[in-house]
Order: sequence, then structure tokens, then C-alpha cells
Amino acid sequence: MSDKRKRYLLDEEEIPRFWYNIQADMPNKPQPPLNPRTKAPLSPEDLYPIFSKECSNQELNQTDAWIEIPEEVREKYKYYRSTPLVRAYGLEKALGTPAHIYFKNESVSPMGSHKLNSAIPQAFYCKQEGVTNITTETGAGQWGASLSYAASMYGLEAAVYQVKVSYEQKPYRRSMMQTFGATVTASPSMSTRAGKDIITRNPNYQGSLGTAISEAVELATTTPNCKYCLGSVLNHVALHQTVIGLEAEKQMEMAGEYPDVVIACFGGGSNFGGISFPFMRHKIAGEPGKEHTRFVAAEPSSCPKLTRGVFRYDYGDEAGYTPLLPMFTLGHNFSPANIHAGGLRYHGAGVIVSQLLKDGLMEAVDIPQLESFDAGMLFARAEGIIPAPESAHAIAATIREALKAKETGEEKVILFNLSGHGLVDMSAYDKYLSGDLQNYSISDEELAGNIAETDPLQP
Amino acid sequence: MSDKRKRYLLDEEEIPRFWYNIQADMPNKPQPPLNPRTKAPLSPEDLYPIFSKECSNQELNQTDAWIEIPEEVREKYKYYRSTPLVRAYGLEKALGTPAHIYFKNESVSPMGSHKLNSAIPQAFYCKQEGVTNITTETGAGQWGASLSYAASMYGLEAAVYQVKVSYEQKPYRRSMMQTFGATVTASPSMSTRAGKDIITRNPNYQGSLGTAISEAVELATTTPNCKYCLGSVLNHVALHQTVIGLEAEKQMEMAGEYPDVVIACFGGGSNFGGISFPFMRHKIAGEPGKEHTRFVAAEPSSCPKLTRGVFRYDYGDEAGYTPLLPMFTLGHNFSPANIHAGGLRYHGAGVIVSQLLKDGLMEAVDIPQLESFDAGMLFARAEGIIPAPESAHAIAATIREALKAKETGEEKVILFNLSGHGLVDMSAYDKYLSGDLQNYSISDEELAGNIAETDPLQP
Repeated sequence: MSDKRKRYLLDEEEIPRFWYNIQADMPNKPQPPLNPRTKAPLSPEDLYPIFSKECSNQELNQTDAWIEIPEEVREKYKYYRSTPLVRAYGLEKALGTPAHIYFKNESVSPMGSHKLNSAIPQAFYCKQEGVTNITTETGAGQWGASLSYAASMYGLEAAVYQVKVSYEQKPYRRSMMQTFGATVTASPSMSTRAGKDIITRNPNYQGSLGTAISEAVELATTTPNCKYCLGSVLNHVALHQTVIGLEAEKQMEMAGEYPDVVIACFGGGSNFGGISFPFMRHKIAGEPGKEHTRFVAAEPSSCPKLTRGVFRYDYGDEAGYTPLLPMFTLGHNFSPANIHAGGLRYHGAGVIVSQLLKDGLMEAVDIPQLESFDAGMLFARAEGIIPAPESAHAIAATIREALKAKETGEEKVILFNLSGHGLVDMSAYDKYLSGDLQNYSISDEELAGNIAETDPLQP
Repeated sequence: MSDKRKRYLLDEEEIPRFWYNIQADMPNKPQPPLNPRTKAPLSPEDLYPIFSKECSNQELNQTDAWIEIPEEVREKYKYYRSTPLVRAYGLEKALGTPAHIYFKNESVSPMGSHKLNSAIPQAFYCKQEGVTNITTETGAGQWGASLSYAASMYGLEAAVYQVKVSYEQKPYRRSMMQTFGATVTASPSMSTRAGKDIITRNPNYQGSLGTAISEAVELATTTPNCKYCLGSVLNHVALHQTVIGLEAEKQMEMAGEYPDVVIACFGGGSNFGGISFPFMRHKIAGEPGKEHTRFVAAEPSSCPKLTRGVFRYDYGDEAGYTPLLPMFTLGHNFSPANIHAGGLRYHGAGVIVSQLLKDGLMEAVDIPQLESFDAGMLFARAEGIIPAPESAHAIAATIREALKAKETGEEKVILFNLSGHGLVDMSAYDKYLSGDLQNYSISDEELAGNIAETDPLQP
């Protein structure tokens, strides 16, 4: 037992100096975003009014496979990176599987999740470009807390719209944001036109990421010197998150293994892309011994855009303020059930991931809420880390793979991303323990109806 | 900036193989514990009915300076140790101090604090000795969560008495314990004689660690095959925690520095002893360049046993079940104000620390609640880690030292222990942010009265 190494860490100098931009290597490049009014393809300049210039450029960069991490950002990464790659011996034992399970532990970030990896560069670029105010949406609050801290790091004012159901379910995350000096508003709110509109239509609406995005984008475009930052979905966010997979690749090498399966939970795609893309480049290149790897996105059954959505142009937000993006979607006004994995309650998938799924380079599974909490509890007791309800979806998918390996007796190597811990989500575990949680399902008719009614390219 | 290393980590093989037992090296050994009825000195065997045999032996071991960490425990340590030693550049900058500030980040433990370092060996020894049930007290819940997880690690049943005010203020920690399968009871409870007695006298009593200890000890001594585990105060707990300081010593060496001051918050003394004792051995030995180091315990002003208590024999618990211990105390029935640093609400100090304070090998400061939260907020914004309200006391004392260094222009090297994060204590920060927190003070008369009335060696 004593020769089995548990954790793999990198020296500071081995922290990646470049992010990996998979767009440059994709066999089929993503289609361009479209202007929501004219439907014309957008250039980076068209995005400047909303995002920092650097992020706008990164968003549409389909040529440079490696984009340098600014030294100032890398210095901030050093405070919590590398994050450990951990061999999950406890979980393997609990499952009695011959599989070798590894997880990348992003929960050790001071904010408790991977979100800081993109919050820091987004805030940094804004600061560098003279921006004074930033605004964003947040679901469970992992992203909002990270952006609030990154804003305070660079002396920016931050305004966060938090999905109402999470604002109420997870008051501690609101307090975290306020501790870093951010202004936090429950969404939908009466402070924006988008918020007012939806409250008028549906006074009891509990909010969604799509609505909160509308509010934040509206604030950014109506406030001087204010930019909008997004925590997932977009290409540049997944780009920043590739620091996860690039580290993991080096760490798996230290462990002398290469993953047969890479798994992450899926909300907009940033933690999935972050851990997957660096490994996927070897698959795309057809490298021997590395082309067989499967990439599995684990989404909630109640918000199944990858497994049951449609691929088409859609808005990134509920009100239709954002560019039109080619994505797997449930319709931009899709209102997901109030599951506790607030970070996965989003109607669409990022553009890159959508294209990769279409091209068969990755796959997706859907996880019912109760299965995700069963998995989270098992993992907590086996590994001592209480996972975020979002990350518990990745664990559930990992358990499915590990049990398949048990049946076949295969020593499969599974790597998943533990995107965050659940210490600020204990009220959800409380409900689970008292039997108050349920599964949610949507009928095919309901889904098809919502998708059909909301196609922005149909008159 | 880029050549400034932020964090120092050790390879797995460098995780200590021995704990350091300062008792063997103390110039004046601690006086023995006394039987509460006969007042006769106790041998390890007298402790066997309450604690595991191994912990009882460690408790009174005054001869072996190094005690081997069982291989099985070290294997568990590897899942989260070494913890990082971090250079607090952000805090230094915020204070404008020439001091070099380092902190040992115990908050990255999966339970969020240093407590797991002792929970694992305590549960392990119980398991090894055939014990099936363990019980304990907890204040803020850091210790209870850690022991609950350690119990589940070894298949033991755990029953935790949580101080009522914390049980109500910090429901998330209760959920954490329940997630690991523990039974959690608010203390004082009607489930024990000690609890009933105090509820009868004072129906609205919000509890204290002293009362919760009475309840747990009572349960242990009246339940078959059940042992009691304590999270601080005792010698063997501080012994286990020396893994912190032993790692920190190696890590400070990597940084090329040696601390002029070592600081930790103080409840019973385990995190203080854990980081201090390994460095203090060089002071005791009079080693050149290492004998000048100061050791500062930061206690809350509302529970000032080190700065305003008396040194004498006293009970470790409220009801008087435990052996009499030679300690700095406020009287065993001292009822501390409901500060949010629940882990510091204890009437007495550990035996070793009490002797060291008496002998002038260390010092103590008291921190008002508001100063601790001011410090916690400053640290959160400067370093991105929201500290536990307990740890914020260490930060406040660190800030005092750093500002003194600023006055004198000295490049003083300060090391403090960040014993835990505050993510499960956000309701306290919430209160601070809304201006609802206050300081508490006790008059000399009150203190003297309480101390005089409760001397167990006076008839």
C-alpha cells in the first residue's frame, strides 16, 4: 500500500505558460456567431462593446493553437495551482472495480472551484484595457464568487446577477461575493428591462442562467466603461480552463498512465473543455495509443441539451441580447427544473463542444438528480471530499464507467474533473439526507414544443 | 515578480514519519493529571476507560521526543498533505510592511481545517484496539466533521455533541457530519445527565465546549465499546498536529528563511502547538539563530484564559468528569460569549502550553471579535481565502506584528497557521458585513469571581 502514490503535483515552473486553443486543430471549425439583428457573421470587433478586446479576439481565434498566459495571470495561478491529480483509491475500493480512477481536484482553489482559472484572466484583461466595472451572471455562485474575487484583485467594481433560486438556496455564496465587495442582485430583478419583462410575464419565475445573462449583458451595454464577463459557454472561457487538462496531462504522465476515458460535468462546457481539449488534441492528431480516448460530458437529465437538444443557431441568453451561436440547445427560453446543480441549469452548449459532439469526437450522458447525489455521497465517504452538486454528475458518470469496467474486468483508466467542492451546498445534501430530493423529467413533446417555438432564425 | 515563489510543497516521501513530542524536551515537565475524586496522579492505565490505549500512552509520554506515525495514518495524510506553505505577498502589500509573511494553509484539507490531522490517528487507534463507537464534542464543527469522516474511514459509529449556539449558527457543518454518517446532537441535550443538569439550572444555555465534553465523556463511559475523542487541549492531540510545524520547518527551509515569530489562534492549543512545537525545540535547545523566535497564541478577548486566567488544576469539562489538569483556566464552568469563533470558546488551555507560558517560552495576546473579522476581511481580499473566524484571530495577531515591523522597518519573518477556511461560516461574515457583530468584554471582578468560586482543589 505504501508505494502507491496518492497525489501528483507540479512545480511552479511547470504550470503551463500557454492555454490550448482547440479551435485551431478542429477538423471542422465552428461556424461564426451571427449578429442577432442582421444575422451577419460577427468579427471580434463586433464583440468589443460587450467583452474585453482580448477575450473577443480569443473567442474567434481559429488559427493559433497556443495562446500565451499573461505573466501576471500565471503569477496569480501560482497561489493555488497546480491543483492535485489524485488517484481515487477509496472510490475504486468502494466500487470493487479494476479501473484506475483519477480526478483532477479543482476544489482546492480558494474559491472552491475551477472558475477562478478564467475569472483571473478576464478581470486582468479588463483592467489592462482601462475598464472600471464588470458584470456577470452566476448560478450556484461558484463563478460569481470567483469573478468577485478577481475583480477585487484588480480594483474593479463587480455587479453580479445571481439566479434567484440559487440566491435563496445558497445564501453563503452571496455572502462570499459580498465579502469581496461585489454587488449581488437576485435575477430576474426589476433593475433591468430584461428582468422586468420576465417578471411581468411570470411573477414567480425562479430564474435561470439565460435570464441572468440577459440582465448582466444589459447592464454592461448601458453602463459606461463596463464589460460583461461570462463563466462558461464561450470559447475563450474554455480556453482559459485548458490549464486544467494541460496540468493533468503532465500529472498523468507522472503516474505513468494515459486516460481511456475523460469525464466532466456539463453546464456550458468550460470545465469539460478545460480537462478534455488538451487530451483530445492527440485524438484529433490520431496519435497511436492516444486516439482511442473517449470524452464524456455528464449533464443533468432535467436540462439535457446534449442528449436531447437540437443543433442550430440560438441565443446565449433568454432575452435575445447575445449573438446567435451555433449550439446544441433546448431553446433559449428553456426553464430548467430547480435542481441543486445550479451551474448546470443552462439551455445551450458552447460552440466548440457542440461542433465536437456533432463530429463524434465526444459523447454525452444525462444523470438524474438522485443518481448524482447518490454518487456524491459515495464519493464523500470514500474520498473525504464533499463534491459540488455539479461535480457529482461527473462522479456519477465515472461510477457508471467503473462498474462497466468491473463487469468486463478491464483495468480502464478513468480521469474526471472534480470541478468544485460542495461545502457551500450543504443545504442540498441536507435535503438529500432527509429524502426531500426528487428527479425531474421532461416529455419529448414538451421539449420538442419548446425547441420549435423558439427558433430565432424562423420568422 | 515572476521569480518570487508563492507556495512550497513537499513530495509525499517527505511527509513526516514521526510526530514531535515536546514533553520530552521541556525544561519543566507538565505536572501529572489527577484523579478527580482521589486527587491521586494518574497513570496511562487510568485513562484507558476514556481514550484509546495508544492515545492514553501518548498523553503521558514524557520521554520519547519522536513518536512514529503509523504507516496507515501516513497513507491517509498523503491524500491532502503536505499542505502548502504560502508567502502572503498580497497581505504584505495591503499592509505596506517590510515583514515577510508566510502561512501554512491547513484549510486545503478536505474537511477545511487542520482537525483531520488528529482525527485520523484517533479513529485509527480505536479501530486497531477493537473499539466500535466513538464520541466527541464540537464547537464550530470543524473537529466534529473531521472525526465523523475519520470514523467513516474506519467503519466506526460516531456520535457528536455540538455546542448549541454553533449547531444553530452553522447548520452546514451539522450536515457535513451527517453526510459522513454521524449522529449529531445539540449540547446541552437531555440525552445525558450532565446535559439535563445544566438545562435544569439554565434552560436557555447556549452551550460551551466544556459542557459538550461532559456529555460526550458521559456517553463514552456509559456505552459498551465506546471511546471518547477530543479535538484539542490534550497532549496527544497537539502531538498529532505537529505534522503541521514539521512540514512548515522543511518548507521554510525551501524558502530560505526561519521565522522570527510563529503565530496561531488558540482554543485548546492543538493548532498552536502543532505549528509551534517543532520550531520551539530549537529555542529550548538554544540553537544559534533559532533561539530568538517568539511564539504567540492569539485568543479571543471574550475567552482570555492565557492573558487573564489563572494557572491551577481544573477540570477539562463543565460537569467535572475529566481528570484534573494543571492549566491556565477561567474556571471550568466559565460560559463564554457567543462569538462566531466557536472553536475558541473553551475555558482552559492545554497542559503543555500552560507550562510553556508559565516558563516564558511563549506569549499570548487577546483579540476582540471585531478586530478578528477586520483581519479576516483584509486577508480574504488580499489572499482570496476567506479564513475561519478562529483563524482570523491568528491573522489579526499577524497584522499587529507586521505593522510593528513597518514602524521599525524590520524585515521580520512571520509564520502563522491558517487553521481553516470560513466557507461554512459565511453567516458570520454576513453579520459582520451588515454591522451586526459586536465585541464582548468581561470585567476583572466577574472573571476573578468565577475563578475563585470554581477551584476544584478547594473544599
